[in-house]
Amino acid sequence: MLRQEERLVQQLRDYSASDYYPFHMPGHKRNTELGKEYNNPFEIDITEISGFDNLHHPEGILKRSMEWAASVYGADKTYYLVNGSSCGLLAAIFAATEWGGHILMSRNCHKAAYNGVFLKHLKADYVYPQVIGNLGIQGGILPEDVEDMLASDPEIQAVLVVSPTYEGIVSDIAGIAEAAHRYGKPLIVDEAHGAHFAFGKEFPRSALELGADVVIQSVHKTLPSFTQTALLHLRGDRVRAEEVERYLGIFQSSSPSYVFMAGIENCIYYMDGRGRREMEHFSERLLSLRTALREMNHLLLLDRDLIGKFGIFDMDPVKIVISTERTNLTGADLDGILRERYHLEMEMCGADHVVGITSLGDREDGFQRLEAALLELDGRLNEKVEDMDLESSLEWSSKVTSRPEVEMTIYEGTSAPAEPVLLENSVGRVSGEFVYIYPPGIPIVAPGEMLLPSLVHTIEEYQQMGLSVQGLKDPAGKTIQVVKRP
Amino acid sequence: MLRQEERLVQQLRDYSASDYYPFHMPGHKRNTELGKEYNNPFEIDITEISGFDNLHHPEGILKRSMEWAASVYGADKTYYLVNGSSCGLLAAIFAATEWGGHILMSRNCHKAAYNGVFLKHLKADYVYPQVIGNLGIQGGILPEDVEDMLASDPEIQAVLVVSPTYEGIVSDIAGIAEAAHRYGKPLIVDEAHGAHFAFGKEFPRSALELGADVVIQSVHKTLPSFTQTALLHLRGDRVRAEEVERYLGIFQSSSPSYVFMAGIENCIYYMDGRGRREMEHFSERLLSLRTALREMNHLLLLDRDLIGKFGIFDMDPVKIVISTERTNLTGADLDGILRERYHLEMEMCGADHVVGITSLGDREDGFQRLEAALLELDGRLNEKVEDMDLESSLEWSSKVTSRPEVEMTIYEGTSAPAEPVLLENSVGRVSGEFVYIYPPGIPIVAPGEMLLPSLVHTIEEYQQMGLSVQGLKDPAGKTIQVVKRP
Repeated sequence: MLRQEERLVQQLRDYSASDYYPFHMPGHKRNTELGKEYNNPFEIDITEISGFDNLHHPEGILKRSMEWAASVYGADKTYYLVNGSSCGLLAAIFAATEWGGHILMSRNCHKAAYNGVFLKHLKADYVYPQVIGNLGIQGGILPEDVEDMLASDPEIQAVLVVSPTYEGIVSDIAGIAEAAHRYGKPLIVDEAHGAHFAFGKEFPRSALELGADVVIQSVHKTLPSFTQTALLHLRGDRVRAEEVERYLGIFQSSSPSYVFMAGIENCIYYMDGRGRREMEHFSERLLSLRTALREMNHLLLLDRDLIGKFGIFDMDPVKIVISTERTNLTGADLDGILRERYHLEMEMCGADHVVGITSLGDREDGFQRLEAALLELDGRLNEKVEDMDLESSLEWSSKVTSRPEVEMTIYEGTSAPAEPVLLENSVGRVSGEFVYIYPPGIPIVAPGEMLLPSLVHTIEEYQQMGLSVQGLKDPAGKTIQVVKRP
Repeated sequence: MLRQEERLVQQLRDYSASDYYPFHMPGHKRNTELGKEYNNPFEIDITEISGFDNLHHPEGILKRSMEWAASVYGADKTYYLVNGSSCGLLAAIFAATEWGGHILMSRNCHKAAYNGVFLKHLKADYVYPQVIGNLGIQGGILPEDVEDMLASDPEIQAVLVVSPTYEGIVSDIAGIAEAAHRYGKPLIVDEAHGAHFAFGKEFPRSALELGADVVIQSVHKTLPSFTQTALLHLRGDRVRAEEVERYLGIFQSSSPSYVFMAGIENCIYYMDGRGRREMEHFSERLLSLRTALREMNHLLLLDRDLIGKFGIFDMDPVKIVISTERTNLTGADLDGILRERYHLEMEMCGADHVVGITSLGDREDGFQRLEAALLELDGRLNEKVEDMDLESSLEWSSKVTSRPEVEMTIYEGTSAPAEPVLLENSVGRVSGEFVYIYPPGIPIVAPGEMLLPSLVHTIEEYQQMGLSVQGLKDPAGKTIQVVKRP
């Protein structure tokens, strides 16, 4: 028997009534003012009855709605997604490649992109993000790296990059699109974290304006929409609409939620109207927060000035990325202190940083609490280990220390007979499983890749730090599945 | 610009405020009393923050919730699905078969099952439902037919059947499970329409109790839960839990909705408590409706007595299936009259019947209106063409008239170079696309199948009847993509 207080709905309500403040998704920030149109969602939760069209075969109200959304965004076609950006990524990969083909993707793609590579038996060529010295944060993808890879493998059928990243790092999409198109290949951009780009001049420009062929955006991440809702935008004909539609029809429920579809439309309707003005207020508040946080002496706020010095193209200001590199705290430490002491819930923490998401759903008191907490905490950090010279410490490095060696495709690595070995004995073996940290869900190792000493070391280090290392079949995380030797 | 009255949320609200009554999904029937826990869903819409677990890697609150759900249903494992039964079918098929393997499936499976066959390059062997004379409704799957097919193709890796069907027809699952297990094969049952079976003695028994290895149920179809929510139950080890989990992790968003997850839990919590008593009241009302409708002279209510005469195993009483076979109305006619004249919205119509779904979310006035409408309409049907002798007319026929001939797998048929030809010229060609009616979404023709005269005739007939024939690339429905001749 489930007790009343154990019920998920009760725990969610209790949590919502607490003073914990969300610096995480979804972008509506549990702001009930933004959700007032959904009072009693059962009221508007219907199925594909007469007059209400069919998402998988739109001819009426949904077709018109998605055409209107495309006009707001400047896309040729826009699709409402009720199974998150995940299904958009799968559909885009399936639509742009052939079975067993090659795809060029940025290594920092989300797990969902790797799932697409696995399902379609693709060979993935990787392009690596810039490495920023010891901040532990990855930089952008360089157009010249994309061009080099395209030159080296003529079998590549599509290019896929993620921009912005979880940490808000934005790549030179115009340059990457030019490179891809020079080789006649479509560019898919996972812009899951950039759905707000179209609604404010102070944000980086959306990939959709910069030449990308397919752009996938999570409206729930930074805009006021339900978790699990997203958009897929299409421009041009390098990727065929009918193929995208075929696979969206497969990777999404045949009973799509009208609450979600109405929620996506509401979100765009709001953003295209009153939301544009709200975005200006939000931007002012955000600027004021960022200005205040620049005064920290030990904790370090990443911003455009800083990342610019290291050759990174751009950064999305809505991401509050705080590096702990100049302190003796880990990212998990800072995350824990903010949660336990200040009741501020961040979106994620890495080894040496935490990431908070801000949006127009935020309230003034949330900004004030975050600012006060970080400044107070920073003031107490006299236990700082060493007062590094930031500029020299954060030296730009193009040397990548742990690029996995691909021995077989992800499908082959997953399907080959495997056996568990202790992590410490796994060096030199080929992995049979994914290992990643969630969030952000970017693989450290993918199936079919050689377990190099540096990779195994990274996994062990993350486990010791208490980060959420996932993918290992072994619930204790002590062993890893490796491909059996012939 | 989208006008206020054009907005989806507004149209949904307007519709909800109208007097149109739902005899269709979802099972909550827009009954706001059942949805009162969701007032302002943004309040409980969070992401995977500390303390709230991760659906794709459950260790806390979601793990406990799903274990509790499994105990309610008597499953070894139960998974909450936020991408509908569709993703459950895909995951089950992927978990139970190998790439390019063989699967035995009932021909009346949902499009989602065919999508799984396509994605995994399977060869599908089909077992056909019994045909009921001229009612136009398909019967059950016979265990002996399953056994014959298993004997004829030793490469079959799994058996998949749908029961109950859209029309509520239930097969002898215990017999089918025995046959499958005799050959050492797992049985997957698409029980999307039978999520209520566990909650009332007057319903057929759930496949989960009858030996099926994987059972997929849409909680939104007949129980009070959000559209797009479903369950996958697992019993035994013929299908490995870790494989199911791998594919559920792929076919569901990595940002699953907490509103949906709480909604699924709420639904089961309610059904296991107060809902059991409500089910008894509902069953009484339903019995009274069915008794009244048995008095119709021209329209014909399908019930257990009637289908029993034709050798069909069982029928789910919550489906109100009205045959127009004894009248000069088509199913679409009756559906239209009920909608336009009586504001009663049915779930679907076939060539010669309509289907309404009832649930404990129904209100007394809905039952009264349906009863009054059908009896009034039946009383006016003096224009009846002929007063057939039902028993002889509905002769049981094991002769199947239009079984497609499979020339290549669905994947091969989809991938082969294709060209459009006029439907009337397509006989003898191999189809390059699916053709189906939605709902129920069961293919008339799948890619790779020969277009026999009877099939082409059926498609043209359905189009003329105004049924929603989908799948054809040609929006006008005049041509069909066929595989080019070598």
